[in-house]
Amino acid sequence: MRGRLRIVGIGPGDPSVRTFRAVEAIKESEVVVGYETYIGLIKDLLEGKEVIPAKMRQEIFRAEISISKALEGRKVALVSDGDPNVYGMAPLVFELMAKRGVEVDVEVIPGVTAALAAAAKLGAPLGSDFAVINLSDLLTPREAILRRVKAAAEADFVLVFYNPIDSGLTKAALEVVRSVRGDSTPVGLVKNAYRQGEEVRITALGEVDMDWIDMRTTIIVGNSETFTWRGYLITPRGYSNKYRL
Amino acid sequence: MRGRLRIVGIGPGDPSVRTFRAVEAIKESEVVVGYETYIGLIKDLLEGKEVIPAKMRQEIFRAEISISKALEGRKVALVSDGDPNVYGMAPLVFELMAKRGVEVDVEVIPGVTAALAAAAKLGAPLGSDFAVINLSDLLTPREAILRRVKAAAEADFVLVFYNPIDSGLTKAALEVVRSVRGDSTPVGLVKNAYRQGEEVRITALGEVDMDWIDMRTTIIVGNSETFTWRGYLITPRGYSNKYRL
Repeated sequence: MRGRLRIVGIGPGDPSVRTFRAVEAIKESEVVVGYETYIGLIKDLLEGKEVIPAKMRQEIFRAEISISKALEGRKVALVSDGDPNVYGMAPLVFELMAKRGVEVDVEVIPGVTAALAAAAKLGAPLGSDFAVINLSDLLTPREAILRRVKAAAEADFVLVFYNPIDSGLTKAALEVVRSVRGDSTPVGLVKNAYRQGEEVRITALGEVDMDWIDMRTTIIVGNSETFTWRGYLITPRGYSNKYRL
Repeated sequence: MRGRLRIVGIGPGDPSVRTFRAVEAIKESEVVVGYETYIGLIKDLLEGKEVIPAKMRQEIFRAEISISKALEGRKVALVSDGDPNVYGMAPLVFELMAKRGVEVDVEVIPGVTAALAAAAKLGAPLGSDFAVINLSDLLTPREAILRRVKAAAEADFVLVFYNPIDSGLTKAALEVVRSVRGDSTPVGLVKNAYRQGEEVRITALGEVDMDWIDMRTTIIVGNSETFTWRGYLITPRGYSNKYRL
């Protein structure tokens, strides 16, 4: 009998921003695998389960052990924070299965990714087309990241930056956008959205406090129409082009 | 006493993919406003409430009535499917408040947007940077949309297309990507994700059946590294560049 592997998005952190399906999947599992911080975020769901926590950068171990426990016939939940697709565990599990030619029954359970969690805390910054870019250069060369930033900035996407772990690269990325859009472009910074230590700041590209940004910060840069109003970041959808508001 | 307006993302459709916070917010509200289809998706939560359904394209009415009911001191939930930021109701509510200079207590409650819902049904297509583009030209000129598609295709973003309501524009957008990435680029089509009538198809840019795509279809086009395997769409995160998998 083949086991089941559920790759579960647990959302940004607070239990209230989980989906019902995510909670049910974890409750029904026998084995729970995940980065130790995420395991901490779902403590309330773990009673009676075999829990396999892993350190940062042990993603391959997490995927391997999840597949192998499922192959043993066990019901496994592999947890990702946010959504398992977006810089989460889903791609790696499928990539490994394809490479090895093994397959287990997999269900991916979507979750509220950081772009949406941060956006909700800022008001309405994602009202138009947007691009999501990972600022970690662990797996992608930095020139490739900056090229992508430039293209998206020039095409006037709202930009969402994940994982600003390297302050030099983060500064370079914001500089690229500033050179295209100018100093006054609104920027929203959200640290620990829906998690302990949550903080929200709204600033402008010419005034970003680099020291405040850490790896738990999601950065949203507005497009050419984004504006701020009473502590909110707002990207119009375009109604005022067509209707009298 | 000022009322409260919660702009609630109800997720893709199935109750299991709602967040707990979304359900709680609707339950605590006195007035529920939304497009009639979305009202239908939350029937189970509406007992005893004043329900104000609206037709398609009545977004301004929905935002207006929500703000005005909140100004009367009532607790209002304005529902969006998916996430309220992403082509949802949040931007319009804030834009109207800013234009009128009125303000009510607002909370935006994030939800699982179609990109994430469709991705989960396809496996792991959003493993790398991605861009979300609305293919409706109701509020954006079609040249602007196609320019954005081209820039994102050239920068090798995974592309997620929402609202393919116009088959001519949809065809043109896919043609732009095809001219950059080639015929064999994998494409995932998901109709009614987590909703009645759900259907999933994986194809290639050179073989897309335009007649199958309707306004309820989310289209995900892979980047240059995306591949298909046993009915899944997989975009590697880049581990194989760095580690032996």
